[in-house]
Amino acid sequence: MIREIEVTTRAREELVDVTAEVSRVIAESGVRSGMAFVFCPHTTAAVTINENADPDVRRDIVSWAAGTVPRKADWRHGEGNSDAHVKVVLTGPCQPIPVEAGRLALGTWQGVFLCEYDGPRARRLLVKVMAG
Amino acid sequence: MIREIEVTTRAREELVDVTAEVSRVIAESGVRSGMAFVFCPHTTAAVTINENADPDVRRDIVSWAAGTVPRKADWRHGEGNSDAHVKVVLTGPCQPIPVEAGRLALGTWQGVFLCEYDGPRARRLLVKVMAG
Amino acid sequence: MIREIEVTTRAREELVDVTAEVSRVIAESGVRSGMAFVFCPHTTAAVTINENADPDVRRDIVSWAAGTVPRKADWRHGEGNSDAHVKVVLTGPCQPIPVEAGRLALGTWQGVFLCEYDGPRARRLLVKVMAG
Repeated sequence: MIREIEVTTRAREELVDVTAEVSRVIAESGVRSGMAFVFCPHTTAAVTINENADPDVRRDIVSWAAGTVPRKADWRHGEGNSDAHVKVVLTGPCQPIPVEAGRLALGTWQGVFLCEYDGPRARRLLVKVMAG
Repeated sequence: MIREIEVTTRAREELVDVTAEVSRVIAESGVRSGMAFVFCPHTTAAVTINENADPDVRRDIVSWAAGTVPRKADWRHGEGNSDAHVKVVLTGPCQPIPVEAGRLALGTWQGVFLCEYDGPRARRLLVKVMAG
Repeated sequence: MIREIEVTTRAREELVDVTAEVSRVIAESGVRSGMAFVFCPHTTAAVTINENADPDVRRDIVSWAAGTVPRKADWRHGEGNSDAHVKVVLTGPCQPIPVEAGRLALGTWQGVFLCEYDGPRARRLLVKVMAG
């Protein structure tokens, strides 16, 4: 089964928690044991898994990335978002997550996040669920 | 089904578009709905998904990586390619991609790239396709 | 099939080779052809695939990360481990690996590593094996 999740981002750079939306797709799929894949079909946004408790962790991630991959630099690409493309390479476009007992087998502190690097925009994620 | 793709790289560092080759494997597999996994069995090359329109995006990625993970630095590994090993950690050796309607479910601007970080060399990628 | 691997780390930052433990799970699963997923359910540790021959490669990876994502910086998160959270984003929490002929289809020089970024600690990895 594959489903699409829509996400509206509100800043140029932010991590948006999509754990509840992804979990809903797992529940709908009826899959008890298998794998879920959260895939981002954009080239200036990505997906990651990290701490879902203190929102300062997300801010530190965004802020480190902004410092290390600066928006303004000697980029060749003319659209002013080369930093976002580089951050997508570093973060990755897809996160595989085991599904057990009909749920995402995430650790206690893990959440799933869309990483917006060139927003605000309307984004979508594909969630594929495979039994096995 | 699993297939091997051969790629000859031409520079020490470059991103080579392999989208057509990966798409051909999906077509041959006959899988209509499932997942594809593009896996790089090397430790100084990797796989990523990013913009396939403006080649300057690829150049910006390679050039940012060269600046942030310098070839010459206080490395311990004696082969002079520690920067390539680090870039493989950052990029990742495998990209999972959903397959729908018998095709890679990539976004409009996405292509699949072999990331050469210690070429030029003869490289290979494994493409595994699973139905489900 | 899914199995848990326990890993005891001994330093704040280190890469621990878990290739043998992951291979054992593949053997136990009886899967001849399919995919394995090595998933880290922690937010300050990750999984990567890189050279398993010269241990200096691992040291270079850890040392580059320590320099580029410093432990002490202008972080907001109060626990003193924001650097570890950032490194997990860069490394990734899950590595998919093809399984062929009942074995991990790794390249000659590849090993699977738990990346400890905030140890020493007791860690665990989930290894999921899917046939297909």
